[in-house]
Amino acid sequence: MPRTISRDTRLCMSLSGRPGNFGTRFQNYLYQALDLDFVYKAFTTTDLPAAIGGIRALGIRGSAVSMPFKEACIPLLDELDASARAIDSVNTIVAESGWLKGYNTDYSAVASLLASHGVPRDITFALRGSGGMAKAVASAFRDSGFRQGRIVARNATAGPALAEACGYAWRDSLGDERPGMLVNVTPLGMEGGADAATLAFTPEQVVAADWVFDVVALPVETPLIRLARAHGKRVITGAEVIVLQAVEQFVLYTGVRPEAGLIEEAAAFARGMDQ
Amino acid sequence: MPRTISRDTRLCMSLSGRPGNFGTRFQNYLYQALDLDFVYKAFTTTDLPAAIGGIRALGIRGSAVSMPFKEACIPLLDELDASARAIDSVNTIVAESGWLKGYNTDYSAVASLLASHGVPRDITFALRGSGGMAKAVASAFRDSGFRQGRIVARNATAGPALAEACGYAWRDSLGDERPGMLVNVTPLGMEGGADAATLAFTPEQVVAADWVFDVVALPVETPLIRLARAHGKRVITGAEVIVLQAVEQFVLYTGVRPEAGLIEEAAAFARGMDQ
Repeated sequence: MPRTISRDTRLCMSLSGRPGNFGTRFQNYLYQALDLDFVYKAFTTTDLPAAIGGIRALGIRGSAVSMPFKEACIPLLDELDASARAIDSVNTIVAESGWLKGYNTDYSAVASLLASHGVPRDITFALRGSGGMAKAVASAFRDSGFRQGRIVARNATAGPALAEACGYAWRDSLGDERPGMLVNVTPLGMEGGADAATLAFTPEQVVAADWVFDVVALPVETPLIRLARAHGKRVITGAEVIVLQAVEQFVLYTGVRPEAGLIEEAAAFARGMDQ
Repeated sequence: MPRTISRDTRLCMSLSGRPGNFGTRFQNYLYQALDLDFVYKAFTTTDLPAAIGGIRALGIRGSAVSMPFKEACIPLLDELDASARAIDSVNTIVAESGWLKGYNTDYSAVASLLASHGVPRDITFALRGSGGMAKAVASAFRDSGFRQGRIVARNATAGPALAEACGYAWRDSLGDERPGMLVNVTPLGMEGGADAATLAFTPEQVVAADWVFDVVALPVETPLIRLARAHGKRVITGAEVIVLQAVEQFVLYTGVRPEAGLIEEAAAFARGMDQ
């Protein structure tokens, strides 16, 4: 039986333009499994300042922040953690007695995965994308000590800007380069999108690489990841990123770090109805 | 098994200086029993405008409002229902697409109980109290057609003001009057208070009356109600008021009116841990 909600139950939430169910289901599953007096609920808003003001005034414990609010929320907060300052982007707000601190657990999850998978720092990598998540991923590579990067982006403003900010080269296309690691931070391969069957890199590039990292989390095994596995490549998946960043949010809100097996259970449960 | 909270689950809440558990437990019990996709949580705040702004910006479905916010919230709302306008006091906010309408279900619950119990309108009644709840109760008497009332209050400002607003007489004490109905809207007899054992009316007054109405809801059977029952008087209890006003809130939020048996169950569950 789940805990009964009472006046002392703490609310955590998310704010996004189009709320999904992953966070709500993942966090509530863990609260229940660990008997923590919390409840989690996704919200959207058309008035970000009032929504953030409500978090502060109602004593809501924390909030995930997704598109399109990750940068817009910054002036409304009291403090930025280094993870959010590194990329001027917040995906998590934690409130302590009305003091709102912004974090970016996408950034810290990517850095953590590069370390836990043992990706060699001297590898040459190509990262496709130039949006907000590309900034988080490229910055995590930079701050993890990776020096040999190319930002591959058709956008001739955002692409060079991101490359310069991280000290990497910019390419509008990868051409015949064959880097040791391929990193996709575009929506290519995302289920339900127009480009669900499109690969962000050519099969020749995949064959030539040692590592493939696809930030797309749905499906769990994207066409790019499946191709890489078929060729025996080392892979890091978007599903790992989404789960790890959610775990980091959970730890920030509750102070409790769940065991790996329980995290797997919660992730399987959360994915079960998001499709 | 309870419903799983998802992005579509609607949040209802309460705002009060010192949140209790009755509303949270009562509303959540009914949501679960009726399989409604709602969740309810009590909040307090030190910034009422930001809290109300948060209700609007987050699309929260509704909020109960208790002391000390019942009057202060009025300028922050978009519209007042007749029940709130009658007494310039809001105990319930309902949000429709960002439009906040204030209601007073204390007022409507008291009017409804006077009708359902069949209290004769030509009865002479004495009402002790002059605070916000006294205003709700006296106004419900007035608007239900009761003409022969005395407001009994030591407060020589609020007492006469309430009496005049409702067209009743003011007394600083009841003296040797023996009205047919006694109505307590003070904290006298409330469990845990300094005056838990104090009767709002003398035994002689109780014996002489036909009806006794005690707005104190905790304990369910106050000393005044027990004395009245012992003398065979007709009674209306604060427990009836608190449950009925909560039912009216539930109906406003969900559009669903629960059966009487289920209301009893929910009330018993809600009282179970509030003491």
